[in-house]
Amino acid sequence: MKTKLGPQDILFPVPAALIVSGTMDKPNIVTVAWIGMISCVPPVLGIGIHKSRHSYKLIKKFREFSVNIPPADKYKEVDYCGIISGRDRNKFKDANLTPVKSGKIKTPIIKECPFNLECKLVKTLEVSEHTLFLGEILETHIDSDKVKNKTPQGINIDKVNPLVYFPTIRQYRKIGKRIGKSFNACLELKDK
Amino acid sequence: MKTKLGPQDILFPVPAALIVSGTMDKPNIVTVAWIGMISCVPPVLGIGIHKSRHSYKLIKKFREFSVNIPPADKYKEVDYCGIISGRDRNKFKDANLTPVKSGKIKTPIIKECPFNLECKLVKTLEVSEHTLFLGEILETHIDSDKVKNKTPQGINIDKVNPLVYFPTIRQYRKIGKRIGKSFNACLELKDK
Repeated sequence: MKTKLGPQDILFPVPAALIVSGTMDKPNIVTVAWIGMISCVPPVLGIGIHKSRHSYKLIKKFREFSVNIPPADKYKEVDYCGIISGRDRNKFKDANLTPVKSGKIKTPIIKECPFNLECKLVKTLEVSEHTLFLGEILETHIDSDKVKNKTPQGINIDKVNPLVYFPTIRQYRKIGKRIGKSFNACLELKDK
Repeated sequence: MKTKLGPQDILFPVPAALIVSGTMDKPNIVTVAWIGMISCVPPVLGIGIHKSRHSYKLIKKFREFSVNIPPADKYKEVDYCGIISGRDRNKFKDANLTPVKSGKIKTPIIKECPFNLECKLVKTLEVSEHTLFLGEILETHIDSDKVKNKTPQGINIDKVNPLVYFPTIRQYRKIGKRIGKSFNACLELKDK
């Protein structure tokens, strides 16, 4: 039996990503659950930002942003960055987060976030009241103690301990038990 | 200390969503980790699909698709639907999944997935080798035993038990412990 809930903007599980915009001397942070990868050659992702946001103006102006995946224990700081406006407050200071120089863009990344993507704005698409910003990923950072052999496949997810978010239901969660490996788990079914 | 990994198409945690395309008599499934909400009035989400995919043609043709969030225990079936092509096989049959009539679109939803979205294609954007399909969400379904008071806020995430995916690192995981409530967890920081 299914219950109908009408047209809803609910999708889960998603990251609670901290998006940095602006420059090293005046950076801003906003929390975004509406984010997704789109393409791989080159890698491009999209974020949905409301036009009323301070970050909206900063991304439009500087045409760059960084995506920072926070660890689960920073959920209060993540929550703060989603509620307070950067027009009124310095969220880096309030949330005790540290801007660190990026390699390819002028917008900083967040030191306390173990995984970071530097993005250059490549396309802007208006989708009703939100704007979809498409960013080409120019550089990827991972805390050195959380990766083996300096390869993407060597990322240790338990050490990264990313926050998991459930919009609308409004829950922050930790990741759970590892249950399988992709491109592999289905072998039984495939050989049926 | 940060390690640079170059431009990578890595973002986590994400859903491993089962996208259904086609019609009740000939539906197809593809697994998609590249999905994100974009807008809320009306609700619109985006999925990134490679042009070589059978689902790409079906979505272009029927201009509809459903998004189905699988439970963690179906990770083998989810993996299968991402590897095998619908050109060669009937994935519903192979993976023991059941197509169920939707309410607003002709493309079915998946019975075994506790959360389902019916989408109408509203925009197609070419982003290098992938295509971003924007779907307006016309209806939302949840298993009746996993929601209280028939409201989105009443969704019981523990009962839904959604699969969590880590692309590139290729891990399927369960959700973990609930650690906080959003729009609320930051109150200590806010009142500082």
